[in-house]
Amino acid sequence: MKNVHAEGQLHSLTASILRAQKVRLLALDVDGVLTDGGLYISDEREACKRFNVQDGLAISCALRNGLVIAILTGRQSGIVLRRAEELGISEVYQGVKDKRKMLENLAAKHGLDLNETAYMGDDLNDLSALAAAGLACAPANAAAEVRERAHCVAGHKGGEGAVREVIETILKAQGLWPKIVASYINEGQGDSQ
Amino acid sequence: MKNVHAEGQLHSLTASILRAQKVRLLALDVDGVLTDGGLYISDEREACKRFNVQDGLAISCALRNGLVIAILTGRQSGIVLRRAEELGISEVYQGVKDKRKMLENLAAKHGLDLNETAYMGDDLNDLSALAAAGLACAPANAAAEVRERAHCVAGHKGGEGAVREVIETILKAQGLWPKIVASYINEGQGDSQ
Amino acid sequence: MKNVHAEGQLHSLTASILRAQKVRLLALDVDGVLTDGGLYISDEREACKRFNVQDGLAISCALRNGLVIAILTGRQSGIVLRRAEELGISEVYQGVKDKRKMLENLAAKHGLDLNETAYMGDDLNDLSALAAAGLACAPANAAAEVRERAHCVAGHKGGEGAVREVIETILKAQGLWPKIVASYINEGQGDSQ
Amino acid sequence: MKNVHAEGQLHSLTASILRAQKVRLLALDVDGVLTDGGLYISDEREACKRFNVQDGLAISCALRNGLVIAILTGRQSGIVLRRAEELGISEVYQGVKDKRKMLENLAAKHGLDLNETAYMGDDLNDLSALAAAGLACAPANAAAEVRERAHCVAGHKGGEGAVREVIETILKAQGLWPKIVASYINEGQGDSQ
Repeated sequence: MKNVHAEGQLHSLTASILRAQKVRLLALDVDGVLTDGGLYISDEREACKRFNVQDGLAISCALRNGLVIAILTGRQSGIVLRRAEELGISEVYQGVKDKRKMLENLAAKHGLDLNETAYMGDDLNDLSALAAAGLACAPANAAAEVRERAHCVAGHKGGEGAVREVIETILKAQGLWPKIVASYINEGQGDSQ
Repeated sequence: MKNVHAEGQLHSLTASILRAQKVRLLALDVDGVLTDGGLYISDEREACKRFNVQDGLAISCALRNGLVIAILTGRQSGIVLRRAEELGISEVYQGVKDKRKMLENLAAKHGLDLNETAYMGDDLNDLSALAAAGLACAPANAAAEVRERAHCVAGHKGGEGAVREVIETILKAQGLWPKIVASYINEGQGDSQ
Repeated sequence: MKNVHAEGQLHSLTASILRAQKVRLLALDVDGVLTDGGLYISDEREACKRFNVQDGLAISCALRNGLVIAILTGRQSGIVLRRAEELGISEVYQGVKDKRKMLENLAAKHGLDLNETAYMGDDLNDLSALAAAGLACAPANAAAEVRERAHCVAGHKGGEGAVREVIETILKAQGLWPKIVASYINEGQGDSQ
Repeated sequence: MKNVHAEGQLHSLTASILRAQKVRLLALDVDGVLTDGGLYISDEREACKRFNVQDGLAISCALRNGLVIAILTGRQSGIVLRRAEELGISEVYQGVKDKRKMLENLAAKHGLDLNETAYMGDDLNDLSALAAAGLACAPANAAAEVRERAHCVAGHKGGEGAVREVIETILKAQGLWPKIVASYINEGQGDSQ
């Protein structure tokens, strides 16, 4: 993750880590974040979306470690429900017009302060939620206006590991990542999503 | 957007902005412009095309701000109708043999001069329309003969944000973009296409 | 197209142009040449292949200018027939075990000498045909053993314009390309494949 | 293949070749290794996976030369069975929780020592098998924790030739590759998978 406010803000990397330490809920946009922004459309419907298997493993790790994972998207698709079910994500909100309000509602539902939430989005309709979240993240392919306003920008594009990066950032800041890696080496845990 | 005529034409960037200021109608080729040029073909038909979600948001913004968006393609596919319907594009012309004539007809239908039209295309069969349009645009993946004749060439490939770039160029030249960005920040508008 | 034998062979670029001038028949492998080598497989069958629209336009131009285009592939798929039909390619041979023999048969069928044929392939099972063809071509993604034995190697990968490159090389060597470009500018020919 | 332990271990390249010479069985993860990690999901199911045709030809060569090829994946999909059947791979194990134990069972079944096995995987749930295998390989897109623990890391990503690389490494170390290439040149063998 690159820290986009590094210039002129000497402590911004530390600031991002401090923000990540507080995160208890991570809300994710779908298209351009969990996918590469590609909409594979047939003559009847949206045929499929392309998700990333390494993002999936990280989401499984995050859920096992008590992080709430939520999906907030302005579009509507049965595909998102299918992928969320596979990953064990129960907080799925589609057709969302006001993502900031939805993030606030989600925080309230889980008894969290907004600075205990993180959000990753890639386009203008994510700006309101990004402004509200404690940790505002963008994939490498995000619109310039989004990247400029994010606390950190992933080195990977959506669908290519951007979500993996933000989850690792959070779990590392919270000191959980080394134990997760060790558990895979020692116990052969096999969740692969 | 790179200005391809920069060398030897000192005022070409300004010239492109002046061209973009006049644009009231943007006509788009499909394959290689709204998509990456990939034709996903099954044994029965064209299975799907891969569109881009950030292009979609920009098209929604353009339509809301009164720009006419049209699709002109030499191929025929129900996929294009499906995507156009989703985006609210009503001007869709497929199986077009003479794109220049179609662009002229479109301009006349909307009471516009050709220098109030923009066109983005990527291959030889777009050259006639590109020569007629007030603002001739090409994606990064366009054929060399097309790039050489365009007023501006996008930094992104088709299906990877080339259409987003040309729409931003037009809306910025017309002074509309900052208000659009502000509306997303302040009002949480949620159209995501 | 890069000329792979440039070092130590001062006249090789000229040699490739001389070879291209003689070509009357171009035989193409499918996977990795007309596609990016991706096999999109569902649980029942090969779901689709990803072809390239700019390759298609060049194939249409080649056919209109009297070049014979043939497809030779070791695999079997209804997808190839579907794409060949769309492009007007009648010479389609699938499940080919010995591509050299098939190229020889094709040349004989059309009353051509082998040095009037070109072949583009990307892998070991193309080596025999490449060794026989008058102009042996490889896409950028070809196996090292193939690139080393080709007369010219495309700058583009299969499915990303490699076939377009070899057709332009042939049509330019034969002096036909400028007239083709001009016909699109002047007459608005609209074949888009 | 890059040798990741080169620094501080002068003989590591030689060491990797020595490891490759002993390999009689190669076990492969699927997502991110035989594919690019993309999960193409429709609203009903996983629509398809994208495999690589050059990987397929190498697997055919390996099988013909007596190497055992096995597939070990934590996920479940009819797609994997379909591709394995096409390639002639009979050792297919899906829904595997403990990949190390499965690799040990496979070695025992074939009367092999673990140092006669190779494994290629890309993520944390592959670490246990990688630690056990005689030759531990990772594609270029593997998680950092995996790349750090592999004996060699492919220059190509999964689905883009990573499996081809590891098979070539093994067959070259065993002196078999030149004969394979020669057989394609001389006899026109046509297996293309």
